[in-house]
Amino acid sequence: MVGEKKGEGRKKIVAVLPKGGPAAKNPKYLNCVENGLGLREWLESLGHIYITTADKEPPNSELDRNLLDTNIVITTPFHPAYITEERIMKAPKLELILTAGVGSDHIDLHAAAKKGITVAEVTGSNVESVAEDEIMRMLILVRNFLPGYLQIINNEWDVPAVAVKAYDIKGKTVGTVGGGRIAYEVMKRLKPWDVKRLYYDRHQKADRFDKMGVQWEKDLNSFLPECDVVTINVPLTDSTRGLINKETIGKMKRGAYLVNNARGAIVDQDAIIDALKSGQLGGYAGDVWPQQPAPSNHPWRHMPNHALTPHVSGTTLDAQVRYAAGVREMLEDWFQHKPFPEDYYIVREGELAPQYH
Amino acid sequence: MVGEKKGEGRKKIVAVLPKGGPAAKNPKYLNCVENGLGLREWLESLGHIYITTADKEPPNSELDRNLLDTNIVITTPFHPAYITEERIMKAPKLELILTAGVGSDHIDLHAAAKKGITVAEVTGSNVESVAEDEIMRMLILVRNFLPGYLQIINNEWDVPAVAVKAYDIKGKTVGTVGGGRIAYEVMKRLKPWDVKRLYYDRHQKADRFDKMGVQWEKDLNSFLPECDVVTINVPLTDSTRGLINKETIGKMKRGAYLVNNARGAIVDQDAIIDALKSGQLGGYAGDVWPQQPAPSNHPWRHMPNHALTPHVSGTTLDAQVRYAAGVREMLEDWFQHKPFPEDYYIVREGELAPQYH
Repeated sequence: MVGEKKGEGRKKIVAVLPKGGPAAKNPKYLNCVENGLGLREWLESLGHIYITTADKEPPNSELDRNLLDTNIVITTPFHPAYITEERIMKAPKLELILTAGVGSDHIDLHAAAKKGITVAEVTGSNVESVAEDEIMRMLILVRNFLPGYLQIINNEWDVPAVAVKAYDIKGKTVGTVGGGRIAYEVMKRLKPWDVKRLYYDRHQKADRFDKMGVQWEKDLNSFLPECDVVTINVPLTDSTRGLINKETIGKMKRGAYLVNNARGAIVDQDAIIDALKSGQLGGYAGDVWPQQPAPSNHPWRHMPNHALTPHVSGTTLDAQVRYAAGVREMLEDWFQHKPFPEDYYIVREGELAPQYH
Repeated sequence: MVGEKKGEGRKKIVAVLPKGGPAAKNPKYLNCVENGLGLREWLESLGHIYITTADKEPPNSELDRNLLDTNIVITTPFHPAYITEERIMKAPKLELILTAGVGSDHIDLHAAAKKGITVAEVTGSNVESVAEDEIMRMLILVRNFLPGYLQIINNEWDVPAVAVKAYDIKGKTVGTVGGGRIAYEVMKRLKPWDVKRLYYDRHQKADRFDKMGVQWEKDLNSFLPECDVVTINVPLTDSTRGLINKETIGKMKRGAYLVNNARGAIVDQDAIIDALKSGQLGGYAGDVWPQQPAPSNHPWRHMPNHALTPHVSGTTLDAQVRYAAGVREMLEDWFQHKPFPEDYYIVREGELAPQYH
């Protein structure tokens, strides 16, 4: 359709993606510069210009050099290009910013709204991937898996040193900060595990949570001391930035475990380190960092009792298929002036989605 | 009671347990020489002699030196003392062998039966511990957790290198070799995970498995090619020794994952190494080894794509409480000439339990 009315309909689309390197040889590895979310052939057949790049650091990156005449920017939380107000001001033709994945906190949403730009993400595309990963990390911490693994690869064998800090998750209390989609998938999966399940959220969501036996806690201060394991499932917003800090960690049970696959900036970086060193936290796991990529000297890399990885939980090969399909679906809608699925919108016609208010 | 009729009623009990070392300072760490399953005070108050030792290698270990007049031997799979025919012949007063935990394959059951010795274990005491651990290991393999963790501690960051081998378990097929108690706990926990679930067993157990949506496979050769993840949940017996070998691994899907928390000797050690190197197996995880402790140069330590630890899954602090209580319960019954719970028996009055036939 767009091909028919060249000029006006022709879009310049820039996707900022990580370099795949050797992984890109696998055509199923969609989320990379080389494979471009699998969109190139289709977009070019419609007459659009499609640039994929990993080069994103201002002021002279390939992203910056293209801002002047780009219509659509695609970004990903796994290699975030920060779409600041300054960049938005330099992109007069920018109409749409899509997140390939979930979580659009790398975009200045207020600046985008002010300029009438639409921001959307592939809501739900990787919630199950992240939920599986969170439960894996809870088990890794509670069962004290990593010290045993490190013994093996370091040619050691000391059962008591591992077992003296190993527990079953059975009988423990697992709570989620936030009662959204990922939290729901986590709690649904934990139903037959004989754990007490809690959710802290501003709003009770009885049909989703209480109905399946997950108890609502309205107050963070009464929620935290009840939990043996706390998992964070809120977006990064002005009100969640630094939510888990020295004071709130101090309200947790001594030796409790914290899992954060949400966003690094929701926790206070130094408070995590201090709590692990003092034993107030028994372990910290997650795949999100205050800065990504994490610098090679980031202090979290060598703090005790962590189960950290690069930002991967939401970008399994299975998840990539789903969010690449979601990006294509939104582009198809956009070209045809159709609305997106309602819950994909983060900024729509100058209005932020409710969770960002 | 026993204390009243000294001499006849007085038993010499030897428990072969691992040394706890620093872990023993935690009084909850029961499964060690120092804390002796928490039985010392009680046994000595009844007038019995209670020896705990880690010294178990023949011919001159503390265990061997005590065989002549020992009535009861307590062993554990986590630091197995091999109760061979030779040792049984040297122990004329031996009447009872208890396993603190589950799995009595370190005992020559036929020799014990011939001598009229009773063998029993704390059936069920750690099945949920092991089941949790198996699912954790499945997730670690399927989601490719460890390469990401190693990047972090080695000051690296390469998302594609991890994600290109990372999958969701959602949508995959998980099968258990064996349909016993641990298999049941694994499959029960996986119910809300959106996986296809299969069990291979000689006997259909429709009430336990099929009823909750787990499909029976009667034939190992048709079961194996269906599974993305295979987990082993059978005891080590004459018919399961070497069950997973070059030929049976060859029947699995290419790149499938194998989890073995049952016993090391159920798999062929070299076949596992070869299959990981060739890619026929995508990963191997477990906590059981052909020899325990595994020698520091054991080739499994440095084979690719493993998630191995020392033998810990069934000996969390929570599990220790349960199996120590089970051992005490059986000793109480024995002293009072009462029968044990039926399913604790491995050898009873010269008869082996059905799974060892």
